[in-house]
Amino acid sequence: MEREILIEKTKQAVEILNEKNVDMWLTFVRESSVINDPVMEMVVGTNSTWQAAFIINKDGENTAIIGSMEEGNFKKAGLFQNIIPYLKSIKEPLIQYVTKKNPKKIAINYSKNAVLADGLTYGMYQVLLDHLNGTDYKNNLFSSEEIISALRGRKSPTEINLMKDAIKETLKIFDEVTHFMKPGMTEIEVANFVKQKCVDRNFDLAWEETHCPAVFAGPNPNGPHEGPSDKVLTKGTIVNMDFGIKLNGYCSDIQRTWYILNDGETKAPADVQKGFEVIRDSIQMVADKLKPGVKGCEMDDIARNHITKNGYDEYPHGLGHQLGKTAHDGVGGLFPRWERYGDAPHLPLEEGQVYTIEPRLPVKGFGVSTIEEEVKITKDGCEFLTPPQKELILVKP
Amino acid sequence: MEREILIEKTKQAVEILNEKNVDMWLTFVRESSVINDPVMEMVVGTNSTWQAAFIINKDGENTAIIGSMEEGNFKKAGLFQNIIPYLKSIKEPLIQYVTKKNPKKIAINYSKNAVLADGLTYGMYQVLLDHLNGTDYKNNLFSSEEIISALRGRKSPTEINLMKDAIKETLKIFDEVTHFMKPGMTEIEVANFVKQKCVDRNFDLAWEETHCPAVFAGPNPNGPHEGPSDKVLTKGTIVNMDFGIKLNGYCSDIQRTWYILNDGETKAPADVQKGFEVIRDSIQMVADKLKPGVKGCEMDDIARNHITKNGYDEYPHGLGHQLGKTAHDGVGGLFPRWERYGDAPHLPLEEGQVYTIEPRLPVKGFGVSTIEEEVKITKDGCEFLTPPQKELILVKP
Repeated sequence: MEREILIEKTKQAVEILNEKNVDMWLTFVRESSVINDPVMEMVVGTNSTWQAAFIINKDGENTAIIGSMEEGNFKKAGLFQNIIPYLKSIKEPLIQYVTKKNPKKIAINYSKNAVLADGLTYGMYQVLLDHLNGTDYKNNLFSSEEIISALRGRKSPTEINLMKDAIKETLKIFDEVTHFMKPGMTEIEVANFVKQKCVDRNFDLAWEETHCPAVFAGPNPNGPHEGPSDKVLTKGTIVNMDFGIKLNGYCSDIQRTWYILNDGETKAPADVQKGFEVIRDSIQMVADKLKPGVKGCEMDDIARNHITKNGYDEYPHGLGHQLGKTAHDGVGGLFPRWERYGDAPHLPLEEGQVYTIEPRLPVKGFGVSTIEEEVKITKDGCEFLTPPQKELILVKP
Repeated sequence: MEREILIEKTKQAVEILNEKNVDMWLTFVRESSVINDPVMEMVVGTNSTWQAAFIINKDGENTAIIGSMEEGNFKKAGLFQNIIPYLKSIKEPLIQYVTKKNPKKIAINYSKNAVLADGLTYGMYQVLLDHLNGTDYKNNLFSSEEIISALRGRKSPTEINLMKDAIKETLKIFDEVTHFMKPGMTEIEVANFVKQKCVDRNFDLAWEETHCPAVFAGPNPNGPHEGPSDKVLTKGTIVNMDFGIKLNGYCSDIQRTWYILNDGETKAPADVQKGFEVIRDSIQMVADKLKPGVKGCEMDDIARNHITKNGYDEYPHGLGHQLGKTAHDGVGGLFPRWERYGDAPHLPLEEGQVYTIEPRLPVKGFGVSTIEEEVKITKDGCEFLTPPQKELILVKP
């Protein structure tokens, strides 16, 4: 399956190069198991120890210039039409190949806006300039951000199906947590239950295990990216979990909110119910507006305004991010206009992208209300990939 | 243990900043679980999602400027004296802090020579320049290569002990392979035996499992970095294995050479024996010359010349590399003067560094002779961390 997707994405990359009118896309790496350009998992699939150039051209040709020790690995993988091995220096075969193709525009992997389009290190950028010194191609380099944004963002039906598989398995574990959690347990106990399910079922976690899953016990839970602690789940408080798996190379990322009933309670107190509904409704309000062409920051506005209008503090993060081979995927996101997000909040959404929607608000004295859904941008709207949480999940005392 | 080593290395970093007269060392990252600056594992230990600055000063102060969502994680880890959280932009707290310290020299992580000193991406370098725009500090930036070279290279007694543990466990598996391997088995069968031992004993592999272990069955084995295949171990041929584990954060990397006796043979043919001895002796000749101050390329010369003088082809790679938290560690190495190695072959060796010595030569009609030992540079020489292979290991038919 991994190989099929590499072939599919390589083909898609050629289409994008034609659409954007870019002659050549050059991924330049060394010791890629140590510092990993995220492009490697998209269109290469095999690590390289020595300096290596992975080139996809607008004309459909793809070429790997690699250390001779690794020729066998690349031949075996069979993804590249041309494999050019070198021994002492990549400079000559690289210049020779580039000169032969004579590209006017060469995209390389750097980006102020997105880590996933920024796999070229500063040292390797300087090495590349040294190699190209004395040629005109040095002046034809520019950022591949747009190419990577399209390639990672626009999911094929194969990719969407894999993401649906990951969601299905993740929600199964959420259901199991509903039956497992009891007042008196610690966050860590719940997290360990979830991790054990992943071990048993051979699922990778979608992000670092220090906070995957993150479990938040009210009334004063940890911050959004903190790991589970020995805080105790208590009657009359809210509990949340943020959790995702990586299955067949694709990630899920989901949050749900529970309320642990107090003795004698049959429903959550009004404050808790209201906090839940404001979050739930803000997600639906965003989903109603999501479609190709809208900007991420406009979507963030909708949820952020609905929450503050209802008297709550705004959430201390973006509304949502793309999702795919990594838990935070793509370039653009449903981000506010904060300096730290660069231009990413202003990029227009595209069909085939998958976003999380994950607003949060504090419910004083009870905990935090937060839901995270996954949606796919369709031709003229969006489609929930997760069946959205419409009701608080009540846990008996 | 991990935390103790982070503290030890942070203290050592301050000493190195004083020795090199560098005021400030700045590690600038984002989404460090996606693109990982190798400095993170040395002196930070906790990943960061938003833009983050990890600063160690010559005066001994260390400071983390991080996204507010992650404040809890960094407080819990307790490694940084100052933790400065931000919400919308790192720019203001970063400039404020740098202005307060007023450094004349700020080392940042880029290097043409070594991946381990090159964790700053080109996009993040541009972001950093944007942040510092309008200050003079923009002009005080330079490469931290020398700092990282010293910090990763000079192993503390604690680190050496951890590396010895990894070696001990690795050699135990080599011994088990000696008893396990039989003519008729495939390379993959041997590799799977080794991998199962690692699973059983909870060892990580020192490098990618596609070629860890690499198993080479003569007479026509795969190239040095190729993974095991369905080639069959055959009587009257040479077998080699290249294998290492990562245990408590430190790697081993060892190669041994076996000969599978033919029916009726009690020792290896003269050609095989000679090929083995030339490799074995070349390693000892290098070890005799290793000491602080010599250059890696001079050491490579010794082995390479001994091998070609004896009529064999030279090996298509460097003589050896440093070893530590990664299998290919540090900056300098026992490398030839090939363009692809940059300045790394010319750096003088230092006390406390750990190198592999791993020459190879082809024995026509039988396979490859290759041994890989690990040595530590001492005050006036070197010490073998692996008990060196002195005799061919003979496998009964």
